[in-house]
Amino acid sequence: MKRRDTGSAWIIDALALRVDLKKGALPLTQQLYRPLKEWIQHGELAAGQVLPSSRHMAQLLGVSRNTVLAVMDRLLAEGLLVARQGAGLYVAQLPTLLRRSAASTPRPTCYSSRGNTLLGLSSTLSNGYRAFSPGVPALDLFPREQWQRLLRRHYRHADMSWMDYQTSGGLPELKAALCDYLRLSRAVRCQPEQIVITQGAQQAFELIAQLLTDSGDAVWVEEPGYGGAQACFLASGLAITPVPVDKGGLNIALRPAHSPTPRLIYVTPSHQYPTGVTMPVPQRLALLEFASRSGCWIIEDDYDSEFRYDTPPTPSLQGLADQASVIYVGTFSKVLYPGLRIGYLVLPDELAADFTRAHARLHREGNYPIQSALAEFIANGHFTRHVTRMRSAYRQRQACLRTALAPAVAKGLRLSDGHAGMHLLAELNSFDQEALLVKRANDEGITLSPLSRYYLSEHKRPGLVLGYAGSTEQALLQAGTWLNDAYLATRDTP
Amino acid sequence: MKRRDTGSAWIIDALALRVDLKKGALPLTQQLYRPLKEWIQHGELAAGQVLPSSRHMAQLLGVSRNTVLAVMDRLLAEGLLVARQGAGLYVAQLPTLLRRSAASTPRPTCYSSRGNTLLGLSSTLSNGYRAFSPGVPALDLFPREQWQRLLRRHYRHADMSWMDYQTSGGLPELKAALCDYLRLSRAVRCQPEQIVITQGAQQAFELIAQLLTDSGDAVWVEEPGYGGAQACFLASGLAITPVPVDKGGLNIALRPAHSPTPRLIYVTPSHQYPTGVTMPVPQRLALLEFASRSGCWIIEDDYDSEFRYDTPPTPSLQGLADQASVIYVGTFSKVLYPGLRIGYLVLPDELAADFTRAHARLHREGNYPIQSALAEFIANGHFTRHVTRMRSAYRQRQACLRTALAPAVAKGLRLSDGHAGMHLLAELNSFDQEALLVKRANDEGITLSPLSRYYLSEHKRPGLVLGYAGSTEQALLQAGTWLNDAYLATRDTP
Repeated sequence: MKRRDTGSAWIIDALALRVDLKKGALPLTQQLYRPLKEWIQHGELAAGQVLPSSRHMAQLLGVSRNTVLAVMDRLLAEGLLVARQGAGLYVAQLPTLLRRSAASTPRPTCYSSRGNTLLGLSSTLSNGYRAFSPGVPALDLFPREQWQRLLRRHYRHADMSWMDYQTSGGLPELKAALCDYLRLSRAVRCQPEQIVITQGAQQAFELIAQLLTDSGDAVWVEEPGYGGAQACFLASGLAITPVPVDKGGLNIALRPAHSPTPRLIYVTPSHQYPTGVTMPVPQRLALLEFASRSGCWIIEDDYDSEFRYDTPPTPSLQGLADQASVIYVGTFSKVLYPGLRIGYLVLPDELAADFTRAHARLHREGNYPIQSALAEFIANGHFTRHVTRMRSAYRQRQACLRTALAPAVAKGLRLSDGHAGMHLLAELNSFDQEALLVKRANDEGITLSPLSRYYLSEHKRPGLVLGYAGSTEQALLQAGTWLNDAYLATRDTP
Repeated sequence: MKRRDTGSAWIIDALALRVDLKKGALPLTQQLYRPLKEWIQHGELAAGQVLPSSRHMAQLLGVSRNTVLAVMDRLLAEGLLVARQGAGLYVAQLPTLLRRSAASTPRPTCYSSRGNTLLGLSSTLSNGYRAFSPGVPALDLFPREQWQRLLRRHYRHADMSWMDYQTSGGLPELKAALCDYLRLSRAVRCQPEQIVITQGAQQAFELIAQLLTDSGDAVWVEEPGYGGAQACFLASGLAITPVPVDKGGLNIALRPAHSPTPRLIYVTPSHQYPTGVTMPVPQRLALLEFASRSGCWIIEDDYDSEFRYDTPPTPSLQGLADQASVIYVGTFSKVLYPGLRIGYLVLPDELAADFTRAHARLHREGNYPIQSALAEFIANGHFTRHVTRMRSAYRQRQACLRTALAPAVAKGLRLSDGHAGMHLLAELNSFDQEALLVKRANDEGITLSPLSRYYLSEHKRPGLVLGYAGSTEQALLQAGTWLNDAYLATRDTP
């Protein structure tokens, strides 16, 4: 392809044959610059190759000489061309150039081992707002008008300094409002200074892992359990030990023999995800005692504890504990909406300032007008009212789902008690039935989350995690009836 | 402290002496519940201890019997009390309880080794909007009214589905608008599908490290270089090798002897941070060739390349390369404002879908109304106009700073050429002078970032990184004059 010997004939041919400058598309300079750069880069125009005069090129291409000169200036500035006194421009001597070849294949070891594991965990995301998607709140019942009015006002009155980088671990007003709420409603022991606002709970998990663990340290997680938190631990290089959940949640007595002492224990004691059980106080105290003895930290993920239908919300584990051993993590994704991306950490006193500092360095902070609107939403009672309304709506939505599934239940389908939360767990008879139902549901536009995906070890159980909060009663009756019939039709699947 | 033998006398004393129920503060039930829970938890009320009757307690405390009963119900529900038929309530038998002791000290090995290193990197954050803060754009010149109008409209017309979890790697309209911009202005080779929108560039760095490296893998970074990216690599467990920057940016020929083959190389080729040099094409090609030969990835951080004052913006490294080896990272923090928290990745084709999936799992996505407003801001030309206006404003601001520092320059202060970007680098004579100026400036309310903090190895040079974009001309003249005088007063510091 190299035509060093033919003077500028090749480039004239190439320009005439391969460059078709069009008005109105890209600027003409761009249209001329790109092929020239590529020819040089790919060695089609070799080092030392002399270019035709700008006048000649302009004539050939039917553009102004200024256009050609602008392109030459840029190629000169980039070092791709060199000017030789009196002899015009020629192609610079460059290191062996990279060639883009049609045969180039993706690198064989493209992802790291951690990357491949993470991608394995990332296959379970539902893509859309459909019946039974777990963890999705009632977006249809969210007071959007009210919220948007607040947002508008808080954007309008936003401090100019809020546009800058922030270093305070969240807007102080939001921390204060949240603190009041957590103390009263969740029996969390805290001061506003202990709170760090994060971009959702995920960022909180990452921050904990990054500051309190080293790569290779062990973290205990619930089995079955929440994949989102597990992904964060994996991403931070931790070794994950799944510990079985019994009717009281994570039970340290059931941990695998010879499991390494953990640095972190991740639990959802108020409402275990996805089994829905609540950890009783004696089991909580045993967990706290273990953590204290082994010097590890407990992460309490209190993701949906606001929604409890029979009794007042269970007080937090953090409130029961010597606070130095429990880090409480919460999110507004369930009580308000996921797209808001606001979560938070309640840290032991002695960690709070350092976490704030590292958070600002690692993740930056922003969107203070939204935090400000949220602070008012909480402080003026909208938040509590919304939670109360949702509690009643979710109770009814759950009842609809139960009604639709009643015939299946009469024939042996086992549903979780549903005292709390935003989903029911349905236990199935076999993995084949699970797979069949998931596949058939998908064809119907219904999201069924198989329970087996919530396990990391081989000790799986078949079932379905049925989110009911995010669908209307009508949709639940309809999808529930479909599921009921599908269950009955498949219950003899081996 | 245990008074098992004294029946309920101790609790009556304790209630009378230590519980002072106040109207209007916390609800009365909370005020009574808390001390009881603590006494049980701390073993002051021992297992088997019988409680006084609810009537007796109500009388003693001057509250209604219903209040007392509500508290007892809660303690029963939590398993802290047990009811014995006919014999009232007694304290449950619990595992050894955790005691909170005044003498409890923070855990000695509180942070991990990674955590301690991260905290070490996190001490350099400026806290406020002051003269010379690097990386802060002109917040005073941002078209807030216009932007807020857009935000309002896009919030009002937001899809309800945007409130849910998102899995598309960013709003498609934003990816399309951004793609057009990057192709034209930055010579980035891309299609919208190659873009993943992140929460600022930091999240982009983390995602790259988490998917393409394992803990312990090597990453090469520029020395001096950007601490924010380094923090992300450290957080992901990478081993950082600083490679010296020369007048053409990171120079692989200067890497330490026996340095391990990297998995990632992080560079700022358009405008090296903080030295301000631009990597010439031959050095770019040498870097690309090295990456191709050693099978590592190049991260191109193109944080402020829009602001170039003499020549058109330098085309991106990504556009020059076989795209499979370069991952391009950009941010709106410099061209719009940091609090916006929007950055992006331009990925090689074969990585884009997997990165999107892992991003949704690890970090979630949200704030689509803001992304939607930003898409319009770009598509309708506001963005380009803003960049053009800022380019002219920053040129003037830089000129002000140079004017103020002219006497010092005449006496030997060396300033970087300032062809581009939002800061100047001032080289100093000694570290003592650097430390002295930083300290004195801080007392004046001026942020001086010492150049020595941008080094990881011991081969440091003294200097100051002077951000000029975020301050008004008047503020720059004033702070610049102060700095000029302070420089002259300290230039003989050994």
